[in-house]
Amino acid sequence: METIISSAKQTVVIGPDHPTRIIGERINPTGRKKFAAAILEGKLEVVRDEAIAQVEAGADILDVNVGAAGADEAALMPEAAKLIMAAVDVPLCFDSPNPKALGAGLAVYGGKALINSVNGEEKSLDAVLPLAAAHKAAVIGLCMDDDGIPGTAEGRLRVAEKIVERAGKLGIGPEDILIDPLVLTVSADSKAGLLTMETIRLIKAKLGVNMTMGASNISFGLPNRPVINANFLTMAILLGINAPISNPLKEKETVLVADLLLGRDEFAMNYITYFRAHQA
Amino acid sequence: METIISSAKQTVVIGPDHPTRIIGERINPTGRKKFAAAILEGKLEVVRDEAIAQVEAGADILDVNVGAAGADEAALMPEAAKLIMAAVDVPLCFDSPNPKALGAGLAVYGGKALINSVNGEEKSLDAVLPLAAAHKAAVIGLCMDDDGIPGTAEGRLRVAEKIVERAGKLGIGPEDILIDPLVLTVSADSKAGLLTMETIRLIKAKLGVNMTMGASNISFGLPNRPVINANFLTMAILLGINAPISNPLKEKETVLVADLLLGRDEFAMNYITYFRAHQA
Repeated sequence: METIISSAKQTVVIGPDHPTRIIGERINPTGRKKFAAAILEGKLEVVRDEAIAQVEAGADILDVNVGAAGADEAALMPEAAKLIMAAVDVPLCFDSPNPKALGAGLAVYGGKALINSVNGEEKSLDAVLPLAAAHKAAVIGLCMDDDGIPGTAEGRLRVAEKIVERAGKLGIGPEDILIDPLVLTVSADSKAGLLTMETIRLIKAKLGVNMTMGASNISFGLPNRPVINANFLTMAILLGINAPISNPLKEKETVLVADLLLGRDEFAMNYITYFRAHQA
Repeated sequence: METIISSAKQTVVIGPDHPTRIIGERINPTGRKKFAAAILEGKLEVVRDEAIAQVEAGADILDVNVGAAGADEAALMPEAAKLIMAAVDVPLCFDSPNPKALGAGLAVYGGKALINSVNGEEKSLDAVLPLAAAHKAAVIGLCMDDDGIPGTAEGRLRVAEKIVERAGKLGIGPEDILIDPLVLTVSADSKAGLLTMETIRLIKAKLGVNMTMGASNISFGLPNRPVINANFLTMAILLGINAPISNPLKEKETVLVADLLLGRDEFAMNYITYFRAHQA
């Protein structure tokens, strides 16, 4: 199954026979005071700078989240999108819990966007899937619903199935859905990593959809988080995550090595090219 | 299935419900001129020093290879073993292509040793398995035979089956065999990593035996080898390698993180303890 995302200038294909695609996560004010303050002051150059830095580091798609506390997301999202589209060529992923902000971003976008995200809650399904259908966008589906995040892989699969089914009724095929199995921290529950991995296995086997994931929750509360995140990302890619949401400035090498080991990098060309560029 | 290895002072259990056990690889003159020269001169302190350093770094078992070119392995192996047993408590893995050297090491050993290795060649089966049976040792079985290293996972499985069957005839049960799927370099064949991983999956599914592997061949000829080796080790542990042969001074953290992510480290105690000790 192939998921196709595009900007006016680039097309990105996500699928098991393609290299892993990084959705750059850094345009996001969560936990970043200076970045949030700049957004609130309308200084959107910070967004453009993060866009450029991430594409240079190897991001294939950029997540765009302007949800600083108190921000008018519906006004900021299209402004941010225009600035990013003028600066870089990669496709965008509009990231907001606010459907108006998603709609405003999609309205100015030139290409087939990704939406982050819908989940199994009725309210979310009703608000986000029609937007995806209207704009012919692909959408990230989170494995949680009105009852929270299921504590079993089967429970998470059922949410994914519900999202795929409901999307289908609006003409959105499974190829336009990236399922996120969700990750909780292993320091609170030593089986949390296993549960996410079992969920990936099950969803790949049963639905065959492409999958995304943010790895970093896994290491919350533990020392030396980047090492844990990188190893978890490696395992997740092996199991079937093919478009992780991550920081390309830190994790591009991990992704390239995973693809090299998984036979997706003939003559190790991508790996060697990257290594040489970053040795200079 | 549990593989039990012991010294006079320690017992190590290898199995899917246990933490990954590291077989320390550094007592080996291959590619190390100074170490080889010291062995040839009878200066076995280098062996003792490597033993101590590896155990401090977290090795659970020590591989002992004294096969410097021109060395009298059958004389050196028992001397090295005695020196190591006096210095550290962990069990040993006698590593030689020379059955006399293996036998000489086993003869002075106090415990249940591991032998590295037998393979599917008739000559190897005939020479090594009787030694394992006589000394009640466990043995590493390499997936290669008189025709070389099979180019398919099924072919490697057949060699593993042959080793298990022939061992069984001498009273050596599958619990006393660690199968090594073998690793070739991904720079020569981009599918080499995938083939090893598919072999691990297949052998775990069909034979259920415990497995070992040296990861480092995977990165031969490529830059930044430790990163490739660590990522491959992570994938291999996820798939079922539970007693890798590796350098604990470099790869203990990778192994601890893999176990943490695989739910084998309650409250992250092993990881945090290691991290604190290595931060001081």
